[in-house]
Amino acid sequence: MDKNYVIIGGDAAGMSAASKIRRSKPESNIIVFEKGEYISFAACGIPYWLGGVIDSDSKLRILTPETARSKRNIDVRNFHEALSIDTDNRTIVVKNIKTGDIIKQRYDQLIIATGARAIIPPIPGVETTGIFPLRSLSHGQRINTYINENHVRHAVIVGAGYIGLEMAEAFVSRGIQVEIIEMAHQIMPNYDGDMVEKVTSHLKEKGVILHLENRVTGFEKNASTISVSLSQAPHILQAELVIMATGVAPNSEIAESAGIKCGPSKGIKINAKMQTSVDRVWAAGDCVEYHHLVLGEAVYIPLAPSANKGGRIAGDNATGQSFEFPGILGTSVVKVFDYTMASTGLTEKLALSSGKFPKARSVVITESNKAKYYPGATPVTVKLVIDGKNNRIIGAQMFGKADVAKRIDIIAVAITAKMTAHDVAMLDLSYAPPFAPVYDPIHIAAGVADK
Amino acid sequence: MDKNYVIIGGDAAGMSAASKIRRSKPESNIIVFEKGEYISFAACGIPYWLGGVIDSDSKLRILTPETARSKRNIDVRNFHEALSIDTDNRTIVVKNIKTGDIIKQRYDQLIIATGARAIIPPIPGVETTGIFPLRSLSHGQRINTYINENHVRHAVIVGAGYIGLEMAEAFVSRGIQVEIIEMAHQIMPNYDGDMVEKVTSHLKEKGVILHLENRVTGFEKNASTISVSLSQAPHILQAELVIMATGVAPNSEIAESAGIKCGPSKGIKINAKMQTSVDRVWAAGDCVEYHHLVLGEAVYIPLAPSANKGGRIAGDNATGQSFEFPGILGTSVVKVFDYTMASTGLTEKLALSSGKFPKARSVVITESNKAKYYPGATPVTVKLVIDGKNNRIIGAQMFGKADVAKRIDIIAVAITAKMTAHDVAMLDLSYAPPFAPVYDPIHIAAGVADK
Repeated sequence: MDKNYVIIGGDAAGMSAASKIRRSKPESNIIVFEKGEYISFAACGIPYWLGGVIDSDSKLRILTPETARSKRNIDVRNFHEALSIDTDNRTIVVKNIKTGDIIKQRYDQLIIATGARAIIPPIPGVETTGIFPLRSLSHGQRINTYINENHVRHAVIVGAGYIGLEMAEAFVSRGIQVEIIEMAHQIMPNYDGDMVEKVTSHLKEKGVILHLENRVTGFEKNASTISVSLSQAPHILQAELVIMATGVAPNSEIAESAGIKCGPSKGIKINAKMQTSVDRVWAAGDCVEYHHLVLGEAVYIPLAPSANKGGRIAGDNATGQSFEFPGILGTSVVKVFDYTMASTGLTEKLALSSGKFPKARSVVITESNKAKYYPGATPVTVKLVIDGKNNRIIGAQMFGKADVAKRIDIIAVAITAKMTAHDVAMLDLSYAPPFAPVYDPIHIAAGVADK
Repeated sequence: MDKNYVIIGGDAAGMSAASKIRRSKPESNIIVFEKGEYISFAACGIPYWLGGVIDSDSKLRILTPETARSKRNIDVRNFHEALSIDTDNRTIVVKNIKTGDIIKQRYDQLIIATGARAIIPPIPGVETTGIFPLRSLSHGQRINTYINENHVRHAVIVGAGYIGLEMAEAFVSRGIQVEIIEMAHQIMPNYDGDMVEKVTSHLKEKGVILHLENRVTGFEKNASTISVSLSQAPHILQAELVIMATGVAPNSEIAESAGIKCGPSKGIKINAKMQTSVDRVWAAGDCVEYHHLVLGEAVYIPLAPSANKGGRIAGDNATGQSFEFPGILGTSVVKVFDYTMASTGLTEKLALSSGKFPKARSVVITESNKAKYYPGATPVTVKLVIDGKNNRIIGAQMFGKADVAKRIDIIAVAITAKMTAHDVAMLDLSYAPPFAPVYDPIHIAAGVADK
């Protein structure tokens, strides 16, 4: 009879697993080792706290170690870093960061939920004070303190992905001048180029200066100013603060060292039950590769929804149940000032470059989010990516100033159900003038795709 | 070679069919006979024009007869009422309402798109001046004129379905005191009782007086006031204007008289190709019964989206193509002051009373529409109806002050795809704090249903 459930990592996936185990195994010992101070914080809310939209970072702490212990009887040990896993003897070695003590902990079932870390490229000077990644709540707190103590008026953001853009908005709303540097020739490199033009103009309207197809070659501190050297014109920027929003990598070294299989992304390999390659070891969250429902293969797309769901399923299955996580589409949405951008499934460029969809084609339409005559109606642009072989929808992107997030979800369900453009054009969606046109933009896009 | 395409009815279904035929048959004659003055008007927008949200009824005229003639080469004949169909000789008899002339028109393909009419119960005095149905733009114009000329301060609405509630909002926004009389024990009788309580309270907060489980027994005019007699207390109401929002019935008599099969609702029977029981005769829109995707049988649910889609398909197929309309879920949404109510598939009561889902069960949850800590977060209540036999979602209802319309659509797609509660709980939906919680209310409802 399993008694000891050990979880490495106390964020979304780890605490989801712990809570599930507690519900089905009231008598078990559940120990969560968390390297940092906080557990279960709303990482995606940090830019909104830094931008002043949310008034306190305490609102981002969904569950504290104290509450997890007292209310859920989960033995949360924060400031504890797992160093190694011995899968033969079913033990892990953990370091108490505060005391330096080394602990050996036996497990009956182990869940690895070590998450991801910010990738910091090895640029000369990148360790300079005033240069921050943004991944944990502690990072956010350090950035906030630094802004307040150093009267930051100019910030440079390296990377124009969603964190970079969310931070640009946060800084602008605090009156900080923002310049963004992006290696690619477009913002949001995970979107098709034709779907980012409008938002690119919008960023400029909001005073954000973009340097595309440019890269940082070095940082140098001079009193309170950081000089940022660039490979291309303008070659040098000055700022008091730099955010490195240059992507994330899975914290999977501890798994790999223990002989647990990882994929090409270094994310831990799991099956639909969230089992790793080693018996009694499960994994979930930003440290794993999830099955992509369209590509039909494992991919590394670390996002909160799959971390939460995967953690729950790992927790359930670790207690002997048998649930499956079908997979992901990489569905995501991001607010960029007044615009919303959203994506699900494959972009056209990914569909083509994957080699799996040589007949991929696309349609792009712009239509009103509600009846055109209704006050406040605003355009929504919808791009559908279709597999020309069978007319199935395999991806979608949207942008607009309203009603984008739940609209992308409609297509996410359609892709999950392997619907064709015709199926989507015929969907019975809700209509009333204040909410949608009689043909939703989705219908119109699918109708064009179906021709 | 077919040459003459004749369409009876120039609203959504009829004009959709006409436009489709024009595109695939540029050389054909397309004649549309419309009894009224207008074609293709946005009926669902009338309450918003009457309420002052939309400033001119011209915005509701999507296509005028003149434009249809000049731009689309469609021979629209408004003020022409079709009287009979001779399916043997492929002719129809039409009356020019303005001149009284009777015309015989041959057809190669005929599309019946006669729509529906307001049901006016045979209540004594119902023909009194100041008592109006609301179905056509002409009705709306007459109501508007009557309000302006008679300084209406008090209105009675008979029927608390979606038109009744939309008109209540319109009147309140014009400063008119509203009382609603409803035979059933709840507003929105097509919703489950537990899903209308909050909106019922909200109507009262907005000053609307509701008389449930009550019925009108007579109307009597006295100078500018109409006395409305009720079966129950308060037994009598006084108003200057009465709206009869007591449902609609299909205009199918012309079809039935011609030997075209109609269903128990009197809606015209069609197959997935929109063919009637008679060769070369097609039908679509509010005069037909559509196939219900959950019930698996024909139902009469006249709504604009299926009128538009059905019309297109009838038009395509009349020209020799072969498209199918899969069917409907009765997906709908209605704005009731600050609230939005939406429904798709079966209610719990309909699932049980249909006899087809004896194991139907339901869950109701209330969760935040976006991250709880994000400003403006507001609760959304989700009810899922599940077939206990196989765990499939067969219906959903929602209400809340934001983000309801597109959320019901997510479930509409899931129902179309025959997804189970588990499938829905695992859907990869978009997440970002300004738009949704990491577990959408839909996930939470489906997760509870999956237990």
